[in-house]
Amino acid sequence: MPSYSYLGPAGTFTWLALTQVHEAEGAEWRSVNNVGEALDDVISGRSVAAMIAIENSVEGGVSATQDALANIPGLRIIGEYLVPVNFSLVARPGTTLADVHVIAAHPVAYAQCHLWLDRELPDHEHLPATSNVSAASGLLTAGAIADAAVAPPGIERELGVEVLAEGIGDNPNAVTRFVLVSSSLAIPERTGADKTSVIVELPSDAPGALVEMLEQFATRGVNLSLLESRPIGDALGRYRFVIDLDGHLHDERVADALLGLKRFSPNVMFLGSYPRADKQNVEVRSRYGDDVFVEARDWLRGILSGEPPA
Amino acid sequence: MPSYSYLGPAGTFTWLALTQVHEAEGAEWRSVNNVGEALDDVISGRSVAAMIAIENSVEGGVSATQDALANIPGLRIIGEYLVPVNFSLVARPGTTLADVHVIAAHPVAYAQCHLWLDRELPDHEHLPATSNVSAASGLLTAGAIADAAVAPPGIERELGVEVLAEGIGDNPNAVTRFVLVSSSLAIPERTGADKTSVIVELPSDAPGALVEMLEQFATRGVNLSLLESRPIGDALGRYRFVIDLDGHLHDERVADALLGLKRFSPNVMFLGSYPRADKQNVEVRSRYGDDVFVEARDWLRGILSGEPPA
Amino acid sequence: MPSYSYLGPAGTFTWLALTQVHEAEGAEWRSVNNVGEALDDVISGRSVAAMIAIENSVEGGVSATQDALANIPGLRIIGEYLVPVNFSLVARPGTTLADVHVIAAHPVAYAQCHLWLDRELPDHEHLPATSNVSAASGLLTAGAIADAAVAPPGIERELGVEVLAEGIGDNPNAVTRFVLVSSSLAIPERTGADKTSVIVELPSDAPGALVEMLEQFATRGVNLSLLESRPIGDALGRYRFVIDLDGHLHDERVADALLGLKRFSPNVMFLGSYPRADKQNVEVRSRYGDDVFVEARDWLRGILSGEPPA
Amino acid sequence: MPSYSYLGPAGTFTWLALTQVHEAEGAEWRSVNNVGEALDDVISGRSVAAMIAIENSVEGGVSATQDALANIPGLRIIGEYLVPVNFSLVARPGTTLADVHVIAAHPVAYAQCHLWLDRELPDHEHLPATSNVSAASGLLTAGAIADAAVAPPGIERELGVEVLAEGIGDNPNAVTRFVLVSSSLAIPERTGADKTSVIVELPSDAPGALVEMLEQFATRGVNLSLLESRPIGDALGRYRFVIDLDGHLHDERVADALLGLKRFSPNVMFLGSYPRADKQNVEVRSRYGDDVFVEARDWLRGILSGEPPA
Repeated sequence: MPSYSYLGPAGTFTWLALTQVHEAEGAEWRSVNNVGEALDDVISGRSVAAMIAIENSVEGGVSATQDALANIPGLRIIGEYLVPVNFSLVARPGTTLADVHVIAAHPVAYAQCHLWLDRELPDHEHLPATSNVSAASGLLTAGAIADAAVAPPGIERELGVEVLAEGIGDNPNAVTRFVLVSSSLAIPERTGADKTSVIVELPSDAPGALVEMLEQFATRGVNLSLLESRPIGDALGRYRFVIDLDGHLHDERVADALLGLKRFSPNVMFLGSYPRADKQNVEVRSRYGDDVFVEARDWLRGILSGEPPA
Repeated sequence: MPSYSYLGPAGTFTWLALTQVHEAEGAEWRSVNNVGEALDDVISGRSVAAMIAIENSVEGGVSATQDALANIPGLRIIGEYLVPVNFSLVARPGTTLADVHVIAAHPVAYAQCHLWLDRELPDHEHLPATSNVSAASGLLTAGAIADAAVAPPGIERELGVEVLAEGIGDNPNAVTRFVLVSSSLAIPERTGADKTSVIVELPSDAPGALVEMLEQFATRGVNLSLLESRPIGDALGRYRFVIDLDGHLHDERVADALLGLKRFSPNVMFLGSYPRADKQNVEVRSRYGDDVFVEARDWLRGILSGEPPA
Repeated sequence: MPSYSYLGPAGTFTWLALTQVHEAEGAEWRSVNNVGEALDDVISGRSVAAMIAIENSVEGGVSATQDALANIPGLRIIGEYLVPVNFSLVARPGTTLADVHVIAAHPVAYAQCHLWLDRELPDHEHLPATSNVSAASGLLTAGAIADAAVAPPGIERELGVEVLAEGIGDNPNAVTRFVLVSSSLAIPERTGADKTSVIVELPSDAPGALVEMLEQFATRGVNLSLLESRPIGDALGRYRFVIDLDGHLHDERVADALLGLKRFSPNVMFLGSYPRADKQNVEVRSRYGDDVFVEARDWLRGILSGEPPA
Repeated sequence: MPSYSYLGPAGTFTWLALTQVHEAEGAEWRSVNNVGEALDDVISGRSVAAMIAIENSVEGGVSATQDALANIPGLRIIGEYLVPVNFSLVARPGTTLADVHVIAAHPVAYAQCHLWLDRELPDHEHLPATSNVSAASGLLTAGAIADAAVAPPGIERELGVEVLAEGIGDNPNAVTRFVLVSSSLAIPERTGADKTSVIVELPSDAPGALVEMLEQFATRGVNLSLLESRPIGDALGRYRFVIDLDGHLHDERVADALLGLKRFSPNVMFLGSYPRADKQNVEVRSRYGDDVFVEARDWLRGILSGEPPA
């Protein structure tokens, strides 16, 4: 039976993202402890795919995910999913807000609630947790340090904790973007509402190298929805760029832009073309349509062959 | 007596950064628990400045710092400091490596040592801590869960713990970049080896807006040493850019680029011009020198005044 | 009495252009033989201004004019005028089309009628003339070789020749653009429908120098209506560019673009800001308006002065 | 026997250019009266090729040639030749400089000698001639109006005129560039020192269209040696661009740039790839070499096929 890995336990936002995957219904779901473990399941073949968080609308890119995709060869993104993100403050039964001093929270969740926490509990101390669920479940373990935890809504029913406050996220529209990662090299079909992800290193840190890279997209009418720099890690000031672009590798303009990118960059990693979570069709100006690329190639082929134009 | 805030306690990398500040010698040092508290000390006037981490050569930009600078008006960066980052594994006296199962570590430190830990202690469990120092000092408290801690080198002398392994960081050249933040609007003097930081929003997410922004620097010969996107936070897909550029606001080319940036962008935040930590002089091609700007203005003034050229 | 120079005699297209100049009514009109003579009148002070052709919609830029403006310092364009260009075929009274073998015509006029002449008079021979008027008036001199002449419409009334055919120009919409050139350094007032002319050398023939020059305009939202390369003349492959741009030197965005151009180029010649012949207002996107420039300067001045923002 | 057309008669600069063509030795040489006639010989098959002037180092592009190439389909440039250009002032035997009032000269030749003529013969009048040789030979016809002619050096021996002054050209290094034009669609072999010519219309006169066109070259490392605007002719302000670029259509980077150009422009005319007259090898940065293009295509093909990377 095929297996899907996710950052568990059940009830996490990642688990919610995986419930959106039709192919995963009825399959085995493997709960893992971190992104590395999830991707390791995929590489080793223990799972056919892993669901991992890649960006949060408030916190930005998830560094661990971006760096893992950059450093582990053979991974491909095959789907994108969005999960609205909100939080409750939960505690052991009987606790009141006035009792709360130490708050367990996953660092990303903590960052998204910090305005509320600073305002309502100005003297609190933060205890980092490894997941939103473990922050809450840890309250009930012997010797627990934390008095309360930041947790996904609904978790109180499973864990037996009490809700001290709901909707404590600083941004009510917060959303986390997840990707489904596989080791299959087959590219999902083009739907017209697709996204392509790459990671690119610049050839040097000369002035203008970044502009030059972006021109590779601009001259083909390819729009970027994400451009994020990540340190390569060997020295301060050396970056690679994580890029999401509108369109599919089977779009002529995207394929041509990737050719340009590959020639330009010492290191390009293709992470996949896959349907966008928002299912919004990519609008392409007519001069960047597939037919324009085909027509130009025909024109050039005619000149190269020495045939008179039709 | 002037006071300086830093992420404590004494012995953290932030504390090490603050030891590099001559003006802070003999002043009061305020140990705080997080970036928000440090900046609040500055805004409220409790401290003349705060030292905060802004980028790590392995982990990248510190989101909390970047977002705080974007959202809290009236802050200025007045200095930049580099601290080499390495780690030891420390434990209570008498512990051996074979005894270690649970490891306390701040999440960022843990991420930077995870190759070593996975290799040498494959079965370990991670207990998140709020700071590198508290991870180690917590070992000695009653009821401590952790068997060992990831800690900055040297801390064993103060705390009475023992070193099980030194240099366990995955990257021996890892470095963290800190900035000293003040609420003073006075701009540090130009030294010739300066950096200027800004945060910029794009006017729209139209294709080409980013290229257009970068042209504002390119046409003035201004090199960027950092370009990092951060979500604005109101919706997925909306970003602002954190930019470090080579040069000082008193350099003509930098001032002119900022004028162009201000005209282009709906929102530019000037974060400061300050001496670079590496003290390397900024090399400027002669056609972007101050004299070239002055000469061009004189030329234009002559034309506007109707005077014959000299 | 002020005097105006033009390529004569009366009746030429240049003469027609001068009839559009209100200030020239009642002044002395000096008929000259070529552009050099006209500009010499201006430089020496014999004339307050000279009318010269600078571009034809069919033939393109008038090289002699462009090169004279590039090489003679102290000249300024103060006005622009358009003259529709059409031609008649004229002859001595009694001549029929069947009698015509040799046709006198100024080379530029001949080029603009050559489709008609090739079709209607396939065996004709061309006798070059020094002006459109002299081609026609020469028909009546003793020993005239030509049987007919290409001439401006209306000339038959003054000269006593007959029209064999009207509207023989190959392009019925042909137009010649003239400029009024003065040695006054006073810049005509901004009208909102203005044009600015410059001549620019590139700093080197490195790839990208032209793009870099054009970025100086693009980053300020300045549109070009003319970009024409002219050889500098010292060697093949070295060019300067004649540029007309939309807007007036008193427009902030134009002044700023000229500053950028001056810094970029080893040699910029400002030829003038003057009202456009077509009187069409220049449309400027709001982000390039004067107020945006003023606001950016105020913003920068505030930062430089260390004052808190208003 | 194959025939070559040129602007005659023998002795013109065009004739000198044709003497450089090895294939033309022993062939029939057809002297024609103008560029149109020469190209008509090629189109009709009367000649295998025609030599025509396309640019002069002092006067710039030859409009008639550029426009003919833009408007007559089926023509290809197959070679490029340079001829140093200088001039003598010649007259009927017995004439002295003091006798000279009217000077016959081809307009391009006149323009190149006008500094000398203005200085030495300030009161002269210019009579345009159809060629440099006819200007001189016309002196000896009955009823000649001109007193002297501007002519190529050496012509006095053939025609029986006398030289009044030698080296009267304003620029002693003046050179004219000629192209050999054929109707053969076979592309000359790549030599490594090649040039490619195209004529391109912009998609609109929107600001930035020209920059966008130039980016098509810049992003492929293709250098331009000529960029000249020519009016399309239907209305003022509408231009096409005559472009010479370094390299051969068989160079990957050139072919790719032409594909981009074709997609961008509503009308691209390929005029040919041919050996440069100066025989200087085109220097290409290694990242634009053929191998880089082949490697990028292989990389993309691998991804598209779903094969694991080698």
